[in-house]
Amino acid sequence: MIPVMEIFGPTIQGEGIVIGRKTMFVRTAGCDFRCSWCDSKFTWDGTMKDEIRMMTAEEIYGELRAAGGQSFNHVTLSGGNPALIKDLGQLIDLLHLEGCQVALETQGSKYQDWMNRIDQLTISPKPPSSTMNQDLDKLDDIISQLDTDKINLKVVVFEETDYQFAKKIHHCYPQLPFYIQVGNPYLDDSVDNHTEKLLHRYEALIDRVMADDEMNNVYVTPQLHTLLWSNQKGV
Amino acid sequence: MIPVMEIFGPTIQGEGIVIGRKTMFVRTAGCDFRCSWCDSKFTWDGTMKDEIRMMTAEEIYGELRAAGGQSFNHVTLSGGNPALIKDLGQLIDLLHLEGCQVALETQGSKYQDWMNRIDQLTISPKPPSSTMNQDLDKLDDIISQLDTDKINLKVVVFEETDYQFAKKIHHCYPQLPFYIQVGNPYLDDSVDNHTEKLLHRYEALIDRVMADDEMNNVYVTPQLHTLLWSNQKGV
Repeated sequence: MIPVMEIFGPTIQGEGIVIGRKTMFVRTAGCDFRCSWCDSKFTWDGTMKDEIRMMTAEEIYGELRAAGGQSFNHVTLSGGNPALIKDLGQLIDLLHLEGCQVALETQGSKYQDWMNRIDQLTISPKPPSSTMNQDLDKLDDIISQLDTDKINLKVVVFEETDYQFAKKIHHCYPQLPFYIQVGNPYLDDSVDNHTEKLLHRYEALIDRVMADDEMNNVYVTPQLHTLLWSNQKGV
Repeated sequence: MIPVMEIFGPTIQGEGIVIGRKTMFVRTAGCDFRCSWCDSKFTWDGTMKDEIRMMTAEEIYGELRAAGGQSFNHVTLSGGNPALIKDLGQLIDLLHLEGCQVALETQGSKYQDWMNRIDQLTISPKPPSSTMNQDLDKLDDIISQLDTDKINLKVVVFEETDYQFAKKIHHCYPQLPFYIQVGNPYLDDSVDNHTEKLLHRYEALIDRVMADDEMNNVYVTPQLHTLLWSNQKGV
């Protein structure tokens, strides 16, 4: 059984290597991290625990079709940390059987044997501003077990110490596609001029990367959904 | 010799399959098309013809290093239509020798034998609102000569007839990564609330694609540079 927090779509993937891709989202409940700036705290802080449903792969697939009809062939598994869930392999296999590609995002704190069956696996280690202490040996152990042609790295950056962390991660795995993403520190339900504020931060991050000759083989990206829809849930 | 209109960077690639990538730009002069909404008309309308320089591959590489120092390993060749230029093969080979990846964008009106040496070749057929009459037989002839694992398709959409054209192109080549990009009709030097206007149009295009079960395997993207910097040249 899989603990599901929300199922929605079709919408666009707003982040990382599949930015812009038409996709459905399955957001699982539960996380081993408590990032200070997490934009999905409701998956682990208890505020929405009454909405968590324990579902089978078949039930999840049925609900994806109920929400998205025939208008998708790509599903993104997010959280929380979906890598906590051993049974997710059943959902991944069912989605593949039904002709869907599957993307997944996790922080790289736990390995599951289904990871090598994900089409686009994003590993997103958490930088210092999260207040988490990412175990880099564990991360290395996980990455060493994965097909390098299906994984990519993404680090969210809020401040200079995060940037230095991003750089360190990139230099540990220069062969992996590397995405440096601007952080969103404005997590209120309603934020004035949110898009403008985010683009201002995005531009500052671009300037930082452009001037740094040790960060050439990188992608610098925003969250498209936040530029469009601020902190709205379910899009 | 290669007719060069401008060389700039490093900056981010704002569009398509390499969206967000740190890159340098070489913009060549001359185009066989006259798209109504072209955002680089100065490459073909004569207004900046005094700035066109005939350069060798070595001279271009020297100027890339002068502008970008050691802070790049990726170069984007754009236009105009760089596929008009036979000698571009020399620049592509030199960039590869120097450890750079090379991306190129063209409308798919002309084949060159160097095309199969481009790392990310974007073919961008022009929809009806451009007022151009894209030769689809010629496009097909070009695509048939290219490695499918290195090319992608991008269609810019301003209106419903463009959307139908995009769909037709996608369905002709379902195996190729397909990017549908929102058009920018606001080409004045100074546009009020440009970002907001573009995001509004982007959202409408997303809605159109999300509701269409014949357009599942697609990416819907904005122009990041225009969200950030409006119509500014050289970024």
